[in-house]
Amino acid sequence: MAAKPLPVVSAFAWVPDFARGRVRDLRVRWALEEVGQRYDTFLLDATTPRDGDYLSWQPFDQVPAYRDGEVEMFESGAILLRIAEDHGHLLPEEQQARWQAISWLLAALNSVEPSLMQIVTVALFHRDKPWSAEAAAALRPLAQRRLQRLADALGTRDWLADEFSIADIAMATTFLNADDDLIAEQPRLVAYRDRAFARPAYVRALAAQLADFTDRPPSK
Amino acid sequence: MAAKPLPVVSAFAWVPDFARGRVRDLRVRWALEEVGQRYDTFLLDATTPRDGDYLSWQPFDQVPAYRDGEVEMFESGAILLRIAEDHGHLLPEEQQARWQAISWLLAALNSVEPSLMQIVTVALFHRDKPWSAEAAAALRPLAQRRLQRLADALGTRDWLADEFSIADIAMATTFLNADDDLIAEQPRLVAYRDRAFARPAYVRALAAQLADFTDRPPSK
Repeated sequence: MAAKPLPVVSAFAWVPDFARGRVRDLRVRWALEEVGQRYDTFLLDATTPRDGDYLSWQPFDQVPAYRDGEVEMFESGAILLRIAEDHGHLLPEEQQARWQAISWLLAALNSVEPSLMQIVTVALFHRDKPWSAEAAAALRPLAQRRLQRLADALGTRDWLADEFSIADIAMATTFLNADDDLIAEQPRLVAYRDRAFARPAYVRALAAQLADFTDRPPSK
Repeated sequence: MAAKPLPVVSAFAWVPDFARGRVRDLRVRWALEEVGQRYDTFLLDATTPRDGDYLSWQPFDQVPAYRDGEVEMFESGAILLRIAEDHGHLLPEEQQARWQAISWLLAALNSVEPSLMQIVTVALFHRDKPWSAEAAAALRPLAQRRLQRLADALGTRDWLADEFSIADIAMATTFLNADDDLIAEQPRLVAYRDRAFARPAYVRALAAQLADFTDRPPSK
């Protein structure tokens, strides 16, 4: 009987220092570490355009893309759902808790992350523009409101659903896109993030992403 | 035997004209119309803060929230998944097509919509700022790249997965957050959007959202 092939996660072979430890294949590596699934990586050169084969796997030319013995797919949030379903782990079995976890997964990706990323877009990717700092400051209140609501909803619980789930993988990693001082305004979220990032599976996933980066951009 | 209760979708009783036909409960109404499921609405006053009961249902004080006979949840993308699973409709059965559809659902909400919404945020919600127009213009190329990739990936197909799915409900409605001229640059996306919005279920869903609005803000 042929051995089941290892799942494959796409990642970058090199990114600038500010992005190291923040690229979204981290989410997929983390989930695979949580379920105890080994995987292979498909390393891409971030400095040159990818070819059509990669676009047919990841239409937006981003990472991560994912392939297991059965399906080929993309988008970190969708891959988290796949891993949870495939392994029967990282989502509660009880229906109400399960759909709360899925609600929070989508909230991380559609209600929280965009409010943080648009600050990064303006403050970092447009830092050479005269309006960059002022616009970034104007975008902070929306992010602050979202983080306040999140902290209120989390309350004194450890995790967003009844148990640690893919929702926590998605949510904790959205904080990697925020200034530390934005998160620091919410002590409950600081504790939540630190609790999540203390998990051995996260530590292994982060080390694996960092280990895959070369020191300098690959030569063409 | 007690009749199964109708699902309930939260929506606003009043919003300004520019938001009418664009509020995200439209996605849920559309999916329910596609599967032939009647529903009740829970109408909120958008002009006054909601109370704690609503926040325990929808932690970000947004719409839609959703409740059926079994679960209570939030986030339009998560609710679309729930309706598809609950009704065995709007997601392909074959595994590769199913996970492609889920990938595209997440792509709509995390790769396309944020690139469009940050333009709206800057151009509309900060239109009184001196940098508003310049910043909005600077944010267009990212949205244009995402829409170009989407048009390329769609190619000559009618829908994102093998058949019409919740991915198309999410994706087509993200275009409601874009300037028409941004979409107009991509004829394939114009045709895709028009094909989606010509579906009788969409037409009924839009009419239902519009019919639920009162003419003026509710008095306090």
